[in-house]
Amino acid sequence: MTRLAYLGPEGTFTSMALDSWPDADGAERVAFGSVDGALAALRAGDVDGAMVPIENSVEGGVSATLDALASGDPLVVVGEVLVPVTFVLAARAGTVLDEVRAVGTHSHAWAQVRGWMHARLPDAAYVPTLSTAAAAADLAAPTGQEPPYQAAVCAPAAATLHDLDVLAEGIGDMQAAVTRFVLVARPGSTPPPTGADKTTVVLFQRDDHAGGLLELLEQFAARGINLTRLESRPTKASMGSYCFSVDVEGHIRDERLGEALMGLKRICADVRFLGSYPRADRQRATIAPRASDADFTAARGWLHGLRDG
Amino acid sequence: MTRLAYLGPEGTFTSMALDSWPDADGAERVAFGSVDGALAALRAGDVDGAMVPIENSVEGGVSATLDALASGDPLVVVGEVLVPVTFVLAARAGTVLDEVRAVGTHSHAWAQVRGWMHARLPDAAYVPTLSTAAAAADLAAPTGQEPPYQAAVCAPAAATLHDLDVLAEGIGDMQAAVTRFVLVARPGSTPPPTGADKTTVVLFQRDDHAGGLLELLEQFAARGINLTRLESRPTKASMGSYCFSVDVEGHIRDERLGEALMGLKRICADVRFLGSYPRADRQRATIAPRASDADFTAARGWLHGLRDG
Amino acid sequence: MTRLAYLGPEGTFTSMALDSWPDADGAERVAFGSVDGALAALRAGDVDGAMVPIENSVEGGVSATLDALASGDPLVVVGEVLVPVTFVLAARAGTVLDEVRAVGTHSHAWAQVRGWMHARLPDAAYVPTLSTAAAAADLAAPTGQEPPYQAAVCAPAAATLHDLDVLAEGIGDMQAAVTRFVLVARPGSTPPPTGADKTTVVLFQRDDHAGGLLELLEQFAARGINLTRLESRPTKASMGSYCFSVDVEGHIRDERLGEALMGLKRICADVRFLGSYPRADRQRATIAPRASDADFTAARGWLHGLRDG
Amino acid sequence: MTRLAYLGPEGTFTSMALDSWPDADGAERVAFGSVDGALAALRAGDVDGAMVPIENSVEGGVSATLDALASGDPLVVVGEVLVPVTFVLAARAGTVLDEVRAVGTHSHAWAQVRGWMHARLPDAAYVPTLSTAAAAADLAAPTGQEPPYQAAVCAPAAATLHDLDVLAEGIGDMQAAVTRFVLVARPGSTPPPTGADKTTVVLFQRDDHAGGLLELLEQFAARGINLTRLESRPTKASMGSYCFSVDVEGHIRDERLGEALMGLKRICADVRFLGSYPRADRQRATIAPRASDADFTAARGWLHGLRDG
Repeated sequence: MTRLAYLGPEGTFTSMALDSWPDADGAERVAFGSVDGALAALRAGDVDGAMVPIENSVEGGVSATLDALASGDPLVVVGEVLVPVTFVLAARAGTVLDEVRAVGTHSHAWAQVRGWMHARLPDAAYVPTLSTAAAAADLAAPTGQEPPYQAAVCAPAAATLHDLDVLAEGIGDMQAAVTRFVLVARPGSTPPPTGADKTTVVLFQRDDHAGGLLELLEQFAARGINLTRLESRPTKASMGSYCFSVDVEGHIRDERLGEALMGLKRICADVRFLGSYPRADRQRATIAPRASDADFTAARGWLHGLRDG
Repeated sequence: MTRLAYLGPEGTFTSMALDSWPDADGAERVAFGSVDGALAALRAGDVDGAMVPIENSVEGGVSATLDALASGDPLVVVGEVLVPVTFVLAARAGTVLDEVRAVGTHSHAWAQVRGWMHARLPDAAYVPTLSTAAAAADLAAPTGQEPPYQAAVCAPAAATLHDLDVLAEGIGDMQAAVTRFVLVARPGSTPPPTGADKTTVVLFQRDDHAGGLLELLEQFAARGINLTRLESRPTKASMGSYCFSVDVEGHIRDERLGEALMGLKRICADVRFLGSYPRADRQRATIAPRASDADFTAARGWLHGLRDG
Repeated sequence: MTRLAYLGPEGTFTSMALDSWPDADGAERVAFGSVDGALAALRAGDVDGAMVPIENSVEGGVSATLDALASGDPLVVVGEVLVPVTFVLAARAGTVLDEVRAVGTHSHAWAQVRGWMHARLPDAAYVPTLSTAAAAADLAAPTGQEPPYQAAVCAPAAATLHDLDVLAEGIGDMQAAVTRFVLVARPGSTPPPTGADKTTVVLFQRDDHAGGLLELLEQFAARGINLTRLESRPTKASMGSYCFSVDVEGHIRDERLGEALMGLKRICADVRFLGSYPRADRQRATIAPRASDADFTAARGWLHGLRDG
Repeated sequence: MTRLAYLGPEGTFTSMALDSWPDADGAERVAFGSVDGALAALRAGDVDGAMVPIENSVEGGVSATLDALASGDPLVVVGEVLVPVTFVLAARAGTVLDEVRAVGTHSHAWAQVRGWMHARLPDAAYVPTLSTAAAAADLAAPTGQEPPYQAAVCAPAAATLHDLDVLAEGIGDMQAAVTRFVLVARPGSTPPPTGADKTTVVLFQRDDHAGGLLELLEQFAARGINLTRLESRPTKASMGSYCFSVDVEGHIRDERLGEALMGLKRICADVRFLGSYPRADRQRATIAPRASDADFTAARGWLHGLRDG
């Protein structure tokens, strides 16, 4: 039976992402308290996959995930899920808004509801918790002391799960916020091309090389490849030493992408392949004129003819 | 008298950054619980400057600061301070390591001591707090209930300030971690060029423009300008819509930088200037061959001669 | 009274170009036997302008003109004329095609009628002459010996001028062949911008610089400037040392072009400005999005505001 | 027995190039009056190779050769020869300089001795001839009328061949002038890589594509390939429509060159391969860092591992 790790507990947005992952039906779900923990279990072979957040339309890249994938034993992304981020203010049955003097939630969620809080609960103190779902769980059934807050900011699912009342819904400052989650696996299971694929790589620059990012981007441009995400991340060696986490349109089996990756492999200190997988939005790749597989194949045939001729 | 905001309370790394800022001598220090709060007070005219973290060599860019500077009323960076990040494990006098069952600290600090914790306190639970200094303060003098942890991860200064014992020092996983802080002010006070300056801008791409980052970087390259930091940040409009927060070598009064900024202003949807200021490391700018002010001035003189001729 | 030099004698395509140059009305026309001679007279002040060929749609750039303009005392192009190149086979009255055993003309003209000659006069010998008009003139009125050919390849105007019979017309292999002529003057008389202008420059690369042409072209691309002609010419120093003769859309008083020229001046060993002048076809310049003078002026205003702010 | 065509007659610089071509020993030499004639004979199978001039360090590219190779049935360059261009002024025995009232030579040679003529024989008329060797031959043994000149500008070998006196030697304006000749053959005989090779191609841009040359050069730059010659040539369709004749370092069997050619094949309207052959100067190709065959092979192995993994 398949075992899938996720950033838990139940009621987190990650658990909602796993709910909508087709292959999670019938799988055993194993909650972890951190991305690192979930990915360590995957690397150790304790689970077969892990659902983790990678990017939020408001907060940006999820550093813990980007960094955990960029180092350690290789892992690959095999799919992605988009989950709309909707926050509610939840409290024990009978609580009214005026009684809320402190609010518990994860610091990333707090950052996304600050406008609403400023307008409606300007005097409420903020109490950080391990996750939005933990804030709700602890309020419903304290594991130790009484929690030092009267309401939790969490996903609607977490309020339902823990039988909390919803005092307000849709309290996020950005109504259209979305978080992107990825299903990570051990190498050896790249999904086949679908025509609507994305590929994720991490590019490590050579130290001896000024103006390097421009040169890296030119490797994609020379083959007509479109980028959909670029994050710089410190390599942790020293201030100012970066690697780049990049999503591009296309599949590693596409000719143009294979050639671009070879080019990057040559000029980078290292290229870490993090998977080719179907896009959640099923949007087909934009192929630049004369950059299709047929164009590459025709050009290769022409070259071989010249070399043999 | 000058009033300077900072991300407090006393004992945070930010307060240490303010300690080492020369112009902070004799200024009134005003602690804020969030970067947003400190910058709002600056915008409102309640304070004259604000010291906030912008980048950590391990964790990367500080999203709250990058985003608060990139929108709202204009603010400019007028200086920067580098602070080595050294963590200690602090507890009340008499506590021994074996007694520590839970550890309180800010989530970013927790991310940086996980290796030590795994090795030495594998069973300790993690309790998130508002800041590393707050974890120490609450342990020393609880404001409400007894805190649910027996030790705090904080800066050495915080342990000293609150008369806590240091159970372990240098517990960060990266010994050379450094955080960069910036002193932010209202516009109208750009420091004069020193020859060892940095300029920070935020570049907003036009929506109708594929492959845009490459084009933006070429504007710098065409004038021989070196980048020292590039962060992509979501513009919060929709998933996949980014702006770029960029540090480059040089001062806005340098010819090459002025021309590059004009070029970017033309092709970007918007360019937000976040200041030119002396580098903390006093390292002079690398000027590409034939990109000095003298080269630009000579070229302009030549052009004017031709136009008049 | 104005004196205009041209590549003579009367009856050459250059004399036809001068015929169609509006300012040549009433001017004294002075024929020269070579481009070098005409330009030397201009440099010496003996004439006020010189009409010379610069580019042919079949034969390419005219090396003698390109090289004479690229060195020596500065001269500038102040206008251009396009002349369709139509060749006739001309002979003395009474000559029939079968009697033609040798044909006299300039080597460039010979290159352009080779197809017709191969088909219609396969056995005719070729006799090189100083110009197409000289071939006709010498046939009509030999200055010394009887010329060793019975027919001349020349412009229709030359046949008419010298009262020769036209044995065949339109004998060029390329029916749409056109030659571009330029009116050259001493510096100090750049025509004002018309919105449909062209600018000619010669770019000399620095020796110490690999991949230099790419870098030169990027200076134009970064300002959205379109090239209409590029010729590499040896600098005569050594095999493989080139300069580039370039035409671009726009006028030196255009902001985008001024900035591009300054950029080139900085990175090139030398930039030789050969004039801004109205296009013969009156086609307005293609201005890339956000590269108009208004865009540049707005960007400069913005920069000055920041520098002063 | 091998038959080799050349641009004759005996005594031309081309015949000197053939003298120094190792494989010409024992071959039958067939003189042609034009490059077109020599290459037509090669295409027809009448000869096995043809030696033709392609580039002069003073005059630039030889249009007739560039154009004849760029169209018609495919031919390939299999080798190159560099010949120093040294001109002498030759006359019949007994002639003295003062008696020279007219000078015969090819127009290209005339262009290269104009300085000397201006200084020493300012009043001498110029008489164009079919070649420098023909000028000498006709002076030594007139085929018809007495030639209308008393001295010829030609190669030292031509003076010797025709028993003419040398009135002056080294009369070229550029002492170090060199002409590059190529040995052309029918396809199917690309010489093997030597490590010091050159490859010649003609690139035809797509009409619908502005800024195209920059894009073509980037295909070379992205693979670290160095250009040694670039000539723009009209495609003869219309004024302003060009193709580019390009020499690059390396052999078509080099990985980096194969990939660049495939990229060009995709984005160009057409790419015409004109051969890979050993450099005359035996200078080994400059291989950019990480652009060696080993780098390409390693990158391909890495990619295949990922695709299969």
